[in-house]
Amino acid sequence: MFSEMKSVKKLQKMKAVDLKREFTDQRIREMVLSGSGFHLLYAAEQVNSEIINALYELAEESQVAKKMKAMQEGEIMNKIDGFPSENRSVLHTAMRDQFDHRQSRGEAKLAAELAERELKKLEAFLEKIDGKFTDLIQIGIGGSDLGPRALSIAAAAFQKPNVKVHFISNVDPDDANSVLKCVDLKKTLVVVVSKSGSTLETLTNEEFVKERMIQSGLNPKDHFVAVTGEGSPLDDPKKYLASFYMWDFVGGRYSATSMVGGVVLGFALGYQGFLEILRGAHEMDQHVLKSDLRSNLPLLSALLGIWNRNFLGFETVAIIPYSQALLRFTAHLQQLDMESNGKHIDKTGKVVNYSTGPVIWGEPGTNGQHSFYQLIHQGTDRIPLEFIGFKKGQYPHDLKIQNTTSQQKLLSNLFAQSIALATGQENENPNKVFTGNRPNRILLAECLDLQTLGALLSFYEHKVAYQGFIWNINSFDQEGVQLGKVLANKILSLFKGEKGSFPLGEAYLQFLNED
Amino acid sequence: MFSEMKSVKKLQKMKAVDLKREFTDQRIREMVLSGSGFHLLYAAEQVNSEIINALYELAEESQVAKKMKAMQEGEIMNKIDGFPSENRSVLHTAMRDQFDHRQSRGEAKLAAELAERELKKLEAFLEKIDGKFTDLIQIGIGGSDLGPRALSIAAAAFQKPNVKVHFISNVDPDDANSVLKCVDLKKTLVVVVSKSGSTLETLTNEEFVKERMIQSGLNPKDHFVAVTGEGSPLDDPKKYLASFYMWDFVGGRYSATSMVGGVVLGFALGYQGFLEILRGAHEMDQHVLKSDLRSNLPLLSALLGIWNRNFLGFETVAIIPYSQALLRFTAHLQQLDMESNGKHIDKTGKVVNYSTGPVIWGEPGTNGQHSFYQLIHQGTDRIPLEFIGFKKGQYPHDLKIQNTTSQQKLLSNLFAQSIALATGQENENPNKVFTGNRPNRILLAECLDLQTLGALLSFYEHKVAYQGFIWNINSFDQEGVQLGKVLANKILSLFKGEKGSFPLGEAYLQFLNED
Repeated sequence: MFSEMKSVKKLQKMKAVDLKREFTDQRIREMVLSGSGFHLLYAAEQVNSEIINALYELAEESQVAKKMKAMQEGEIMNKIDGFPSENRSVLHTAMRDQFDHRQSRGEAKLAAELAERELKKLEAFLEKIDGKFTDLIQIGIGGSDLGPRALSIAAAAFQKPNVKVHFISNVDPDDANSVLKCVDLKKTLVVVVSKSGSTLETLTNEEFVKERMIQSGLNPKDHFVAVTGEGSPLDDPKKYLASFYMWDFVGGRYSATSMVGGVVLGFALGYQGFLEILRGAHEMDQHVLKSDLRSNLPLLSALLGIWNRNFLGFETVAIIPYSQALLRFTAHLQQLDMESNGKHIDKTGKVVNYSTGPVIWGEPGTNGQHSFYQLIHQGTDRIPLEFIGFKKGQYPHDLKIQNTTSQQKLLSNLFAQSIALATGQENENPNKVFTGNRPNRILLAECLDLQTLGALLSFYEHKVAYQGFIWNINSFDQEGVQLGKVLANKILSLFKGEKGSFPLGEAYLQFLNED
Repeated sequence: MFSEMKSVKKLQKMKAVDLKREFTDQRIREMVLSGSGFHLLYAAEQVNSEIINALYELAEESQVAKKMKAMQEGEIMNKIDGFPSENRSVLHTAMRDQFDHRQSRGEAKLAAELAERELKKLEAFLEKIDGKFTDLIQIGIGGSDLGPRALSIAAAAFQKPNVKVHFISNVDPDDANSVLKCVDLKKTLVVVVSKSGSTLETLTNEEFVKERMIQSGLNPKDHFVAVTGEGSPLDDPKKYLASFYMWDFVGGRYSATSMVGGVVLGFALGYQGFLEILRGAHEMDQHVLKSDLRSNLPLLSALLGIWNRNFLGFETVAIIPYSQALLRFTAHLQQLDMESNGKHIDKTGKVVNYSTGPVIWGEPGTNGQHSFYQLIHQGTDRIPLEFIGFKKGQYPHDLKIQNTTSQQKLLSNLFAQSIALATGQENENPNKVFTGNRPNRILLAECLDLQTLGALLSFYEHKVAYQGFIWNINSFDQEGVQLGKVLANKILSLFKGEKGSFPLGEAYLQFLNED
């Protein structure tokens, strides 16, 4: 167990670095890990070489390299020993294992071949429908929504002219209604995404849109595409223009590089554009597989997170991209991280006696500076930050105002915040005192092009996996979402008039019936 | 000081209610406060009548009624005694004090009259430009962006046909570029919002859009409107089609009901639509002013928050609207709450020895259920939740699938989550154990119409104000954002080639210059 590891005991005795005293320009120059087009700048974390060494000992003691290799090779990683569990491989990396250095054996090879078959289908499909549709609506929720949506927004600068993509996720009818308000259904392709073909929200919204289409005199069969498990109720050529497959070895929150993201991103960016995202993700997959521990970017980020979480005791992490294109990327990471690592038992079913996944939240900079940064600088709790920045914008057009470009202003703010948070400020006026020692790090890349976007996605997937390996939890199931579903069905029965079975639900429902 | 109050000492000795044992249907029926069209259902909070009584003692001991009255009457509330501070009234309530029961004296009366003058100007302006513009771009950041944006999205169901509104906030040039991609500048009105007329991001984006307009052969003077302080550099009839005024007594994060929200919401909803929002906000302002303590909805919400924060020790609050229209409302509340109450000194300048504002985060339900709820149900930290729900959707169209409507499915999920979080679940399989005792409450209203939206905005403004009153902090300044600005300007100087003054900044910049 994590709490009994030698390296953990060692780390427990170590003291956080006081950045108010020790944050220097030399530190900034030295505390950087570079590779695969990224710099991870971590001078503003409360670590020194002794702590870093102990964190790498923890990584070795946790056998992270072996576990990452096993995961990418297709071993059963999604399980709880001694108890009924999903018992599955975890092979989102196979979805993009379509380039050099392919996995050559077993499950991983098979999964990459299955993914390749879907890619070929997608390429042919996109060619076939070219020019027929101006809009695409993706209907899905959770992993079938957040990742593809975050990537679509992030890649909008590279979108084909004259196409638009939309998403309907919420069972709230206002969600579907507001999207349907702004499309011409005649020219709209609808992608329904559900692995089991039984997700309540998704099926409801599918029917909702289908009904509207029929009312408009259109045949849904000519407009609807399914992304689903082979043989699911959605896998039906009589009802869908095409079916693309997904599998149990790719979890929802890890599915953006499968056909769950593929159809919508291929439609928006063209097939080659989607391949660029896959290429970037694959490069990062290779980076974590081939690097030695000390060169591994997501691993270092994971370890710094563990230091902040388990040894300094921070409960949340703010992820702040200084990039408007990453507007919804944090919402994706929120799911990725919190659904993966928000667990209270370890892989043997024991209740853990240490903290696992933190709350992940955030909004793009510089916007956040004019919002919640007040609390980050001067609140009574400390919040570690993960910044993401790019040297260049996505669009070629920028403008010099007062002798600096907007991109330079953006980066000035990013670096200034990192420094201000670390060093703080003394002042005679207590309201102008900043206590500093607010740890942060910066992941810096050249430009948020499609390949970098894919790499960034994979970077965080692996950071999360490494933290799960170290905490010895199963990062790939989500039993915690089940109870709510069961109780929601009980309340739905009450709505249908079936009485007497659920007093708590009835008590809540009475508030709907009065005036 | 808060920590020395009699009621606080009393509360410290009280024990959280064990919801796993005590959560009953009777509790749900009894623990509700209703008024002004809202129910606040708080059976799933870890309180009992003894705790509630002590919390109301705390409210009395903190003189919240007196302070709320003083605020709405225009007393100087934004100050730190004994130190230089902003020394201002706090009169966002005056912006909507345009109906019955108007304040009759002093600053508050004056402020309401000033607001009325701007409303009249707005009404005439909207009439004058009627039909001339199809799109409006609001350029602003922080309070000039988040509140108006959240309200625009929330009110989209009531928008006039054939108009669209857009927002540019981030200094990231990709933000402006991506908005400019989708408007016809000839038919676009641009609203520039900055009280001082000196906000870096806003002025940069203004120039950015102006340049594009000039390139398109248009005269910015015919398209640009300013919302700014009287006499600011933006208050210039030679450069702007019109100027609307804002004042020091309305803070950015409290400004959505001033002209900061007025121009864009008036354009989108019509003048009467904006008035409806004001009417709702005013009703809630009156509710808090006129209710006795025990009937006051925002006060009860504030007190439950204080119980969770200061006595149960929770660091974050998830605000989860079961309404897709409130998609960005939590981002507004994040600013409102965290910038107001993320403070480490009290109103006399003393460093506090108790927790103030928590981290506020959240996404709409049911989406969140398929994302971060795993951690909320089974993670190692507990997260209190504030749900917001409505009996009806905004659009008339809904559809019965499997015998229930989408709205019923939405509400079933909301109530089911409240119950599941409170009661948890025992199971032989440790992965199916839910430890429960996750406190939550539900704010329930009839329908998110414009008036309810205004009331909801005001509800949270007052909840935040009450918590600030109880913590005895200044909820109305934001000194914590200053240091970052100063350092960003130093780095901008480095970009301009002025050397040697800021080694920390130079160290970061070196990573931009290499390849």
